[in-house]
Amino acid sequence: MGARVTLAEVAKEAGVSPPTVSKVLNGRSDVSSTTRVKVERLLEAHGYRRRTSSPSRSPLVELVFHELDSVWAMELVQGVETAAKANRATVVLTRSGTRHAPAPDWIEGVLRRRPLGVVLVFSSLPAEMKHRLRSRDIPFVIVDPAGDPDPDVPSVGSANWAGGLAATRHLTDHGHQRVAIITGFEDMLCSLARLDGYRSAMTMAGLTIDQRLVRFGHFDVQSGFEHGMDLLAGPDRPTAIFAGSDLHALGVLEAARVRGLRVPEDLSVVGYDDVPLAQWSSPPLTTVHQPLRHMAEEATRMLFRPDGPGRAAQRIELASHLVVRQSTAPPEGGAAGA
Amino acid sequence: MGARVTLAEVAKEAGVSPPTVSKVLNGRSDVSSTTRVKVERLLEAHGYRRRTSSPSRSPLVELVFHELDSVWAMELVQGVETAAKANRATVVLTRSGTRHAPAPDWIEGVLRRRPLGVVLVFSSLPAEMKHRLRSRDIPFVIVDPAGDPDPDVPSVGSANWAGGLAATRHLTDHGHQRVAIITGFEDMLCSLARLDGYRSAMTMAGLTIDQRLVRFGHFDVQSGFEHGMDLLAGPDRPTAIFAGSDLHALGVLEAARVRGLRVPEDLSVVGYDDVPLAQWSSPPLTTVHQPLRHMAEEATRMLFRPDGPGRAAQRIELASHLVVRQSTAPPEGGAAGA
Repeated sequence: MGARVTLAEVAKEAGVSPPTVSKVLNGRSDVSSTTRVKVERLLEAHGYRRRTSSPSRSPLVELVFHELDSVWAMELVQGVETAAKANRATVVLTRSGTRHAPAPDWIEGVLRRRPLGVVLVFSSLPAEMKHRLRSRDIPFVIVDPAGDPDPDVPSVGSANWAGGLAATRHLTDHGHQRVAIITGFEDMLCSLARLDGYRSAMTMAGLTIDQRLVRFGHFDVQSGFEHGMDLLAGPDRPTAIFAGSDLHALGVLEAARVRGLRVPEDLSVVGYDDVPLAQWSSPPLTTVHQPLRHMAEEATRMLFRPDGPGRAAQRIELASHLVVRQSTAPPEGGAAGA
Repeated sequence: MGARVTLAEVAKEAGVSPPTVSKVLNGRSDVSSTTRVKVERLLEAHGYRRRTSSPSRSPLVELVFHELDSVWAMELVQGVETAAKANRATVVLTRSGTRHAPAPDWIEGVLRRRPLGVVLVFSSLPAEMKHRLRSRDIPFVIVDPAGDPDPDVPSVGSANWAGGLAATRHLTDHGHQRVAIITGFEDMLCSLARLDGYRSAMTMAGLTIDQRLVRFGHFDVQSGFEHGMDLLAGPDRPTAIFAGSDLHALGVLEAARVRGLRVPEDLSVVGYDDVPLAQWSSPPLTTVHQPLRHMAEEATRMLFRPDGPGRAAQRIELASHLVVRQSTAPPEGGAAGA
């Protein structure tokens, strides 16, 4: 691995003073962009890593979202807050970028704030951001409810295939034969994993899959409602729907109401996630519990390990389990294909 | 008002060095508690105020909750985040204490973090905390969905009486005569204000109020369900229920389902808050929109005013308005008293 390069050596090679390198490391704005780029390249080329984080005035854990209005968000905030507090740290919450990466200006802010570590709710992080965080010795972990992890970053997810299997088996065990699935987009691994769990459960029950009963869409209420309205329109409607999120399931409940069908007497519905609203729906929702709070806690704890989450990317997958409430029941005689 | 006392004068009077006073001001832990108490008392006695906040490494706005799992919480986070970002600041989120005040250890953390300002989701703040924040020139504002403001602290609320009036008038205008209300505890001003709005609307419609139809409880789903089950049990059940929160309303929807009543055909339901789940319920909920996000934005903006939110306590009350969705309709013939 060779000897570690020092700040002074980087300064000399860049032809600037050590304080200037220090400013770049701290994300300060009083450095020209030419100098910044030159110094960053040298830091990267030499694999520079700050030896120890300077103790910040008050220890912070930074939690980064791309959207704050998802029903997951508060579950994750609670998990991070609990684990941060246990380590006497406070949570900084930022919103930036898209599902794929934080916006470019985000990284400058992080370098100025110098948190003890960063928890990202994203599926990936650009190489340049990874490098900049590593060179400042700021550990980072991805919490990934979408199950689509960057192989180069430590991450915490949950068992999507097993969740899809459990949801579908619950329905086939009740005697349902026409079981539909509404899941997320085909380019999200979590959607594919849950769909494959559904397929395996159907096959295990000796049932064939009607492709018209397999639907993809956004993970929102509207998408659940639209697919629900369509699925429940015909005479050969399904007697059960496995909805890929609790929001999908709420949309399906509303579609059932509009179509004049009772849940669970005429239609069984299983959701996914078990966010708080799942127990508040009418009827309360049978759903797959994705341990979002626990995932966020686990990710935050990784930041506080003596060796950090490590460069060797680590993937932790927590178990999901089915929570049976009142939206599922055996099909009433003759409902299937009636 | 007299001349302002300096840090050196406080140090001299306390018999300690100026750096020690500075440590107390910054919430540092390396000061004995005897010294801390002595210095704090002198700071308070002299009405000391730091002349300017030292620029923090990265500007922070601190948002303090006593619980993170309320359905409001994410709305408020979004409002604070938006206004903070517009002012190039980042949000620190802390959870502490009860509805009435943050825990005692919270204040030490704030003094160390030195945010540009603090937004509290509480109804009051102990005098000692107010003093300590003021002496460090850290402005603070209370966002107060409960409508129960500390008269000595700037706060942002919303119009609860007008909201109760609008909800009830919507029902009486539809021809409902037996209208029940489920509201929060009697010691919360927001509950009383909404109840008074209900009473005025009933009186304006020439209706008498049946005291059995006036219910108090927690603002949660379970409370709505229990009162709903009870209200909907008898033959002289109400044809409409004004639920004091959207969670109450979800509980009422479930009670109606269990009692075999259709909403809105057999029972009209109005909620309060208009949190996102109100549009996802089945049927989508008619509810009073409390502008939670806007309230949090407004509170955060107050921190950035050149003169801060000011010592003279200011109360801003934002308008609420009714959002009509599908949970309300005229009563079906003979439903009342049938």
